[in-house]
Amino acid sequence: MTRLTRHTERGSDDRNDLDALLDQTLVGTLSTVVEGGPWSVPVFFARDGDRVLVHGSTGAGLLRHVCDGAPATLTVFQLDGIVVADSGFNSGANYRSAVLRGTLGQVTGEQQDQALWILTDKVIPGRSREVRPSSTRELAATLVLAMPILPGHWVYKSRSGPAGEPQEPSAGTWVGVVPFTTVAGEPVAAEWLDPSIPVPDSVIAMRDRHRPGPPS
Amino acid sequence: MTRLTRHTERGSDDRNDLDALLDQTLVGTLSTVVEGGPWSVPVFFARDGDRVLVHGSTGAGLLRHVCDGAPATLTVFQLDGIVVADSGFNSGANYRSAVLRGTLGQVTGEQQDQALWILTDKVIPGRSREVRPSSTRELAATLVLAMPILPGHWVYKSRSGPAGEPQEPSAGTWVGVVPFTTVAGEPVAAEWLDPSIPVPDSVIAMRDRHRPGPPS
Repeated sequence: MTRLTRHTERGSDDRNDLDALLDQTLVGTLSTVVEGGPWSVPVFFARDGDRVLVHGSTGAGLLRHVCDGAPATLTVFQLDGIVVADSGFNSGANYRSAVLRGTLGQVTGEQQDQALWILTDKVIPGRSREVRPSSTRELAATLVLAMPILPGHWVYKSRSGPAGEPQEPSAGTWVGVVPFTTVAGEPVAAEWLDPSIPVPDSVIAMRDRHRPGPPS
Repeated sequence: MTRLTRHTERGSDDRNDLDALLDQTLVGTLSTVVEGGPWSVPVFFARDGDRVLVHGSTGAGLLRHVCDGAPATLTVFQLDGIVVADSGFNSGANYRSAVLRGTLGQVTGEQQDQALWILTDKVIPGRSREVRPSSTRELAATLVLAMPILPGHWVYKSRSGPAGEPQEPSAGTWVGVVPFTTVAGEPVAAEWLDPSIPVPDSVIAMRDRHRPGPPS
């Protein structure tokens, strides 16, 4: 499951590629097995060095299940563009994707609090410096899990660039790429908020990190 | 796995909600089980009435595996916004998500070709009317699978709206929502393309379907 058998030119075993994708993408799919069937949920995740952190309520069944050692995958995907070719068959996508495989362990004690701020700061950079500390009650209600990023336990794939030239040019068919990206809009304050409170640096940083860019 | 036990206010059993999410979202995660462990890949998918279509190369291991009747899930997620609260704990996301569960069957014969155009036209609306038909060789190289959408076999969840008012208003902490959306940029023609060939209606329609909108 971690060796590519098709389109090997689209694979990479460069950790920098993997890390860049994990650090940019906010949400992935965590999958495990229960009673012989797959069980999947979307999760926010964050890379912390050589591991990936996820979190959720202590009441979240899937997290409790993988916390007990059930095997898991984390699937991450970024759509970078739609490749429009001269046929349906040759059309496709520019993308980056990764599937990590492993087991997860619970993160506890001081590390739990740190891990939660890593998760928050990935999405809202620097928010940890702007809000109050987590309370004991909040920490008790939250499960934090980590999956190590181990060599041979992940697959990274990507495709980029323009559409290929057709082998038999068909008259007049447009061929190209339409770039796709996930972007943040302008922050909208809660209606009840004192309007004199400015948008904080962390929220500006989040917006800027996911700003509409030029087509790539 | 298909009954919500937490945040039941975020669930919906309205097929219209599910269908809207499936029709808007281009890529999901298809998961199954092999040798007791989860196996997942990102896939393009399209809803065709009461079933969901996926496709890939006949060489794609996971598709061949689920084609043989292995249980599967399709996980779909749309990030609509980041909810910035007065604490890390209360921060979160506006989103819509669905997990469908079932088994997949191969789509063959005339239905295979139709299904492939449904998949193409979902992404590039009307492209089927602009390009040549699929060749016999292309159809033979492509596996198309369908998972029925059955009552009780899917879970839909969503959260929307502003951040909740904190129970203990903390002085001066900004609270609000930053909208997120996936957008298409301007079409980029292949460098080698005759520049007199106009961008076709299907590509314009794709761009317009994923156009940056006002913050929601």
